[in-house]
Amino acid sequence: MRILVANPNTTEAVTARLMAAAAAVKAPATELVPMTAPRGVPYIATRADAVIGSAVALEMLAERHRDVDAAIIAAFGDPGLGGARELFDIPVVGMAEAAMLTACMLGRTFAIVTFSGGLVPWYNECLDWNGLRGRCAGIFALQGAFASIADVQEEKEEALVALANRVVAEAGADVVILAGAPLSGLAQSVRDRVPVPLVDGIQAAVKQVEALVALRPAKATEGTFRRPAAKTCTGIPEALRARFERRDG
Amino acid sequence: MRILVANPNTTEAVTARLMAAAAAVKAPATELVPMTAPRGVPYIATRADAVIGSAVALEMLAERHRDVDAAIIAAFGDPGLGGARELFDIPVVGMAEAAMLTACMLGRTFAIVTFSGGLVPWYNECLDWNGLRGRCAGIFALQGAFASIADVQEEKEEALVALANRVVAEAGADVVILAGAPLSGLAQSVRDRVPVPLVDGIQAAVKQVEALVALRPAKATEGTFRRPAAKTCTGIPEALRARFERRDG
Amino acid sequence: MRILVANPNTTEAVTARLMAAAAAVKAPATELVPMTAPRGVPYIATRADAVIGSAVALEMLAERHRDVDAAIIAAFGDPGLGGARELFDIPVVGMAEAAMLTACMLGRTFAIVTFSGGLVPWYNECLDWNGLRGRCAGIFALQGAFASIADVQEEKEEALVALANRVVAEAGADVVILAGAPLSGLAQSVRDRVPVPLVDGIQAAVKQVEALVALRPAKATEGTFRRPAAKTCTGIPEALRARFERRDG
Amino acid sequence: MRILVANPNTTEAVTARLMAAAAAVKAPATELVPMTAPRGVPYIATRADAVIGSAVALEMLAERHRDVDAAIIAAFGDPGLGGARELFDIPVVGMAEAAMLTACMLGRTFAIVTFSGGLVPWYNECLDWNGLRGRCAGIFALQGAFASIADVQEEKEEALVALANRVVAEAGADVVILAGAPLSGLAQSVRDRVPVPLVDGIQAAVKQVEALVALRPAKATEGTFRRPAAKTCTGIPEALRARFERRDG
Amino acid sequence: MRILVANPNTTEAVTARLMAAAAAVKAPATELVPMTAPRGVPYIATRADAVIGSAVALEMLAERHRDVDAAIIAAFGDPGLGGARELFDIPVVGMAEAAMLTACMLGRTFAIVTFSGGLVPWYNECLDWNGLRGRCAGIFALQGAFASIADVQEEKEEALVALANRVVAEAGADVVILAGAPLSGLAQSVRDRVPVPLVDGIQAAVKQVEALVALRPAKATEGTFRRPAAKTCTGIPEALRARFERRDG
Amino acid sequence: MRILVANPNTTEAVTARLMAAAAAVKAPATELVPMTAPRGVPYIATRADAVIGSAVALEMLAERHRDVDAAIIAAFGDPGLGGARELFDIPVVGMAEAAMLTACMLGRTFAIVTFSGGLVPWYNECLDWNGLRGRCAGIFALQGAFASIADVQEEKEEALVALANRVVAEAGADVVILAGAPLSGLAQSVRDRVPVPLVDGIQAAVKQVEALVALRPAKATEGTFRRPAAKTCTGIPEALRARFERRDG
Repeated sequence: MRILVANPNTTEAVTARLMAAAAAVKAPATELVPMTAPRGVPYIATRADAVIGSAVALEMLAERHRDVDAAIIAAFGDPGLGGARELFDIPVVGMAEAAMLTACMLGRTFAIVTFSGGLVPWYNECLDWNGLRGRCAGIFALQGAFASIADVQEEKEEALVALANRVVAEAGADVVILAGAPLSGLAQSVRDRVPVPLVDGIQAAVKQVEALVALRPAKATEGTFRRPAAKTCTGIPEALRARFERRDG
Repeated sequence: MRILVANPNTTEAVTARLMAAAAAVKAPATELVPMTAPRGVPYIATRADAVIGSAVALEMLAERHRDVDAAIIAAFGDPGLGGARELFDIPVVGMAEAAMLTACMLGRTFAIVTFSGGLVPWYNECLDWNGLRGRCAGIFALQGAFASIADVQEEKEEALVALANRVVAEAGADVVILAGAPLSGLAQSVRDRVPVPLVDGIQAAVKQVEALVALRPAKATEGTFRRPAAKTCTGIPEALRARFERRDG
Repeated sequence: MRILVANPNTTEAVTARLMAAAAAVKAPATELVPMTAPRGVPYIATRADAVIGSAVALEMLAERHRDVDAAIIAAFGDPGLGGARELFDIPVVGMAEAAMLTACMLGRTFAIVTFSGGLVPWYNECLDWNGLRGRCAGIFALQGAFASIADVQEEKEEALVALANRVVAEAGADVVILAGAPLSGLAQSVRDRVPVPLVDGIQAAVKQVEALVALRPAKATEGTFRRPAAKTCTGIPEALRARFERRDG
Repeated sequence: MRILVANPNTTEAVTARLMAAAAAVKAPATELVPMTAPRGVPYIATRADAVIGSAVALEMLAERHRDVDAAIIAAFGDPGLGGARELFDIPVVGMAEAAMLTACMLGRTFAIVTFSGGLVPWYNECLDWNGLRGRCAGIFALQGAFASIADVQEEKEEALVALANRVVAEAGADVVILAGAPLSGLAQSVRDRVPVPLVDGIQAAVKQVEALVALRPAKATEGTFRRPAAKTCTGIPEALRARFERRDG
Repeated sequence: MRILVANPNTTEAVTARLMAAAAAVKAPATELVPMTAPRGVPYIATRADAVIGSAVALEMLAERHRDVDAAIIAAFGDPGLGGARELFDIPVVGMAEAAMLTACMLGRTFAIVTFSGGLVPWYNECLDWNGLRGRCAGIFALQGAFASIADVQEEKEEALVALANRVVAEAGADVVILAGAPLSGLAQSVRDRVPVPLVDGIQAAVKQVEALVALRPAKATEGTFRRPAAKTCTGIPEALRARFERRDG
Repeated sequence: MRILVANPNTTEAVTARLMAAAAAVKAPATELVPMTAPRGVPYIATRADAVIGSAVALEMLAERHRDVDAAIIAAFGDPGLGGARELFDIPVVGMAEAAMLTACMLGRTFAIVTFSGGLVPWYNECLDWNGLRGRCAGIFALQGAFASIADVQEEKEEALVALANRVVAEAGADVVILAGAPLSGLAQSVRDRVPVPLVDGIQAAVKQVEALVALRPAKATEGTFRRPAAKTCTGIPEALRARFERRDG
């Protein structure tokens, strides 16, 4: 099984983190195919960034969907996920949805813990989009700046562990999601320092997308996720345009 | 007061419809500035289309925001609205939110009536994004195809009036929103044929954006709609890129 | 356009505040018609007060609705609004609904800040009636007594600004509504001292009612806001009784 | 134990119906004290009627609260209930809340069945006020007019039984509330003709208010239902005014 | 009227507390029949305990339902309530539902205060099962261990009163439920030390079950609470098995 | 990896169906360990049945949890799941939760389709327990009786396919869950006859439990799913009693 790990951020170092964490949990037969956004922002944090990231994610999937069995949109917040699920025939999973749905099987409530307050509004919208407000004990972020998106995981490790512990004690979270692609792998490395299960977005996404492929769901031919009718469009990269115009089969 | 009417669809005929309906209700001192999407899809209908339309909407506002006092994202569904509200200093209003919020002052429940079932999933997501599920008596669409987006209003007028009447009788809607930019102006022309108030998206948006300008709200400098910090990005049209990178003042 | 500003409190000084704030934002062609409650309580604060204020509001509209194009129920909490919307043919807007709906176009969440804890329960019920719980970051009030309802705005200005700032920092509100008729005008005067948009109830109501008049919505002849059938009643002031009994045309 | 049955409608025949149904279930030691509204509308049906009925209900309680141990606001929809609960020291129960809360102990979902569609909007607001939307299988009304409010119960008996049966079969209601004071007593007389438990508003209210008196809850001296501070008011009947002004002890 | 007070805990001392508190509020003609769980856990606290308690509750009712007019499942959390309501013909009421529904007639919001944090998750699930999240100001528990379930009421009286007062002041609760069978009777003894109404679970349950018996609701013969069809089963105590297999009439 | 497939029904034929469907999707290295309830009901359908099934599920896991890496509670409705998650150290997944959470990654809304109306109330409670009401397009059941639980899948295949198609067309479901252990395997065999993705409960559960094992979540040592303190109990099968009393390590 080949799975596209589409990082809609332009930062290669984040892709490397994603791949390392993903490799640690993938099934033996799974081949992970990395891809870093060829355009866009270095790190999607705001709603405005997510608009760009959503378009980029569709472009990335349009380039590569024929070569893989499934795809992960590898930014917590899942830019472009609904559109991707309409447009492509393969299963597509978002890191945030995978993390949250997985967390639901480990407790009644999950908290989302991340490294920057700037991410909270977008994560809040993602939570509502998933309809999981009632399962969420809160979204919590460190305050203050960080030095580099590539190394924020090491820089903030102590602070994140402390925040996760506080969230368990004070907000009553049964599970903690360590959210944001730059934190990929952290859940495993600090597993013994937080007294509830931790969930890592990319790892959850790898297992969820493997599950979907194994279950062989049919692509919808009716309903709101059937592939849209052909529509002529302009000013869009060729691969995506071909997909919209149904010139690609 | 100058208001940008940014149609994120590429169909000029829809812009013309929007402008005609807008002109009928604008205040004397308001000047409406039309703009049609320079790239994208002819008519945004699906979630995938909305991803493209969201990016295009930000690009359009980046081009013109310095020339106007406020802007309308003139597609029902409000592509890119949250991002635009972060990124720009002027008030930005979406057609769907304006229609729904206006409808709330005319009754307890509103129904959304539109001309194509393909629009319903996207409208549903927009309704949830606005948190107004509890005020909505349902989203209802005509079945079957239409000949041309430019003339769907005339083609389907009888069917839309019949559907609106059925929705009032059977779904208990206090207000009916005639949704979709191609229906602009229809609410006024069939006003006497439906026994509850009708709301037209662009007309509601014009009045709401005029209201916001008159109220002179400050641009947030804290909170989730403050302008994001500068962020280098690549592969994005220059005006929008300058806005992201805060090179534009 | 003539708009009735119906203050259902008996305090003339509050009406004066309302009119001053309203005048600052009204359109040039709008004429505002003030009216102070001829009976009732000096200032509606509790649910019991609101029962009285609701009846008084209907009486006031019955007296004057033929002379105006629209009306504002000018107490935050909107006493009698649903009944007024049934009974009269003109648009009627409440200060609270106008403030909350306007705030929804300026951010994802609004906080309501007011000068007395006694108002909170009633405001809470109003929030629920509008179905906007999911958009509200909380209702916050100063603690302690105030000297005079007429001058509470000046007396508490510093404390209200401090509370608004705290609400932005701690409750994550994107917008702050300064609620209560005695605070009319405060939002504009402290506009630069709170880092998010402020909304003033009467100012929002003026713009919203102007918007409704411009949109010319038909009075419902079906549905839950059609005018009720004639009903004989007793012990009710003549103008209102005539309206209930449909003797007034 | 003396219980005031305050009918906020002016129709004596409805009070008689209420008293007969109440007498059938009251405890031996309970004395029921009937009171018919001295002013207002013959039958509260709309939101506008409820505004009047709310004020009348407070006036009635102000007249009689010193003579009784508790009171029932005997109109389905509970006009003035929140205000009454603030203002008076005795327990006050509404017919609708009593019916709905009682129904919750007989099934997961209740349906509300009534004789006139005109009542539905008001009942809907009452349902939301009680926060019980999730327990309600729907509000259903007969269509068409009725001859007399006094005799609507006999006139519509067959139609109401048929509607109740349909609601059980099609809407999945576990319990049916026969709503509206004019239907008082009907639940017992048609008990064997509907295959789920029926709830009668006044009978539920009698038992609930007896329960509250037996439990001897303290009147709140803090929180949102403490008695409001004295407030001078004008144009209000003397007994109620004395209560507002705290001149009555 | 004979009412079974079925304590699904195995602790006799808790049954004694329940009976004493129940006796203080029952109607003169009511006879209370105590029963302590013959097997199970000493005190149901966790979800796992509740699984055992639910089965035990059905077994207890199967033993005794023919001898009584109604039954109370006398553990806050209401183990087995839904199943009991299906299986038996008599009214069955849970202590938690009775307390919460009663509290709804004494204020807009209730808080649940209990003596051990270990109970909170189960109470949370019970709250959601009742659909009353919107009426609840929170579930609050003392921290730290207690010496004996039989005497926890006296041991923790001061701490519980202090917590109840804090909850009123800080969480805005209109009513406080003192939850957990071991606290039976406490609400009356500390009635004057908390400034809002207190509700006692067993006392509320006695009055509610008396109310249901007086109202004579029919057992459902359709809908989701009709008695299930006969079903052969194995390994279940004889009385309950006979009920499942409909061999008991 | 060894996974216990604990069927809390006593029908061996259902276990066989579960195992066949599970085997079709399991990973190569996964060993499935079947177990049929040694006591209880042949098929859990009602809330009362679920009470029995919940206790039986805990007993089954107590017997076998030391021999496996994870467990599936293999009845749609997930009897005893919350308690099991507290009590045991291994991951435990329910068939209903696994199906619903998996469905969330295949569309916005899922419908639950089953073979008997008697199951609907219990499934409704399970849906609410999972907090996924907003993602569910409805729970739909065939009407009428079936001949045998072992063969209901073949008997009703045509009717279930027809119902699934109707649900897609009329209720707008993006995904259909074929619910109930006796339908195990049906989703794959009718995959091409329904135009949206189908989800099979046991297959989803196998993949989800494999995912959890791969992710190696820590057992909570704080929060609401930490293992409960030792508690002496009586009348409970020895293995479960040892687990409650913490005599098993």
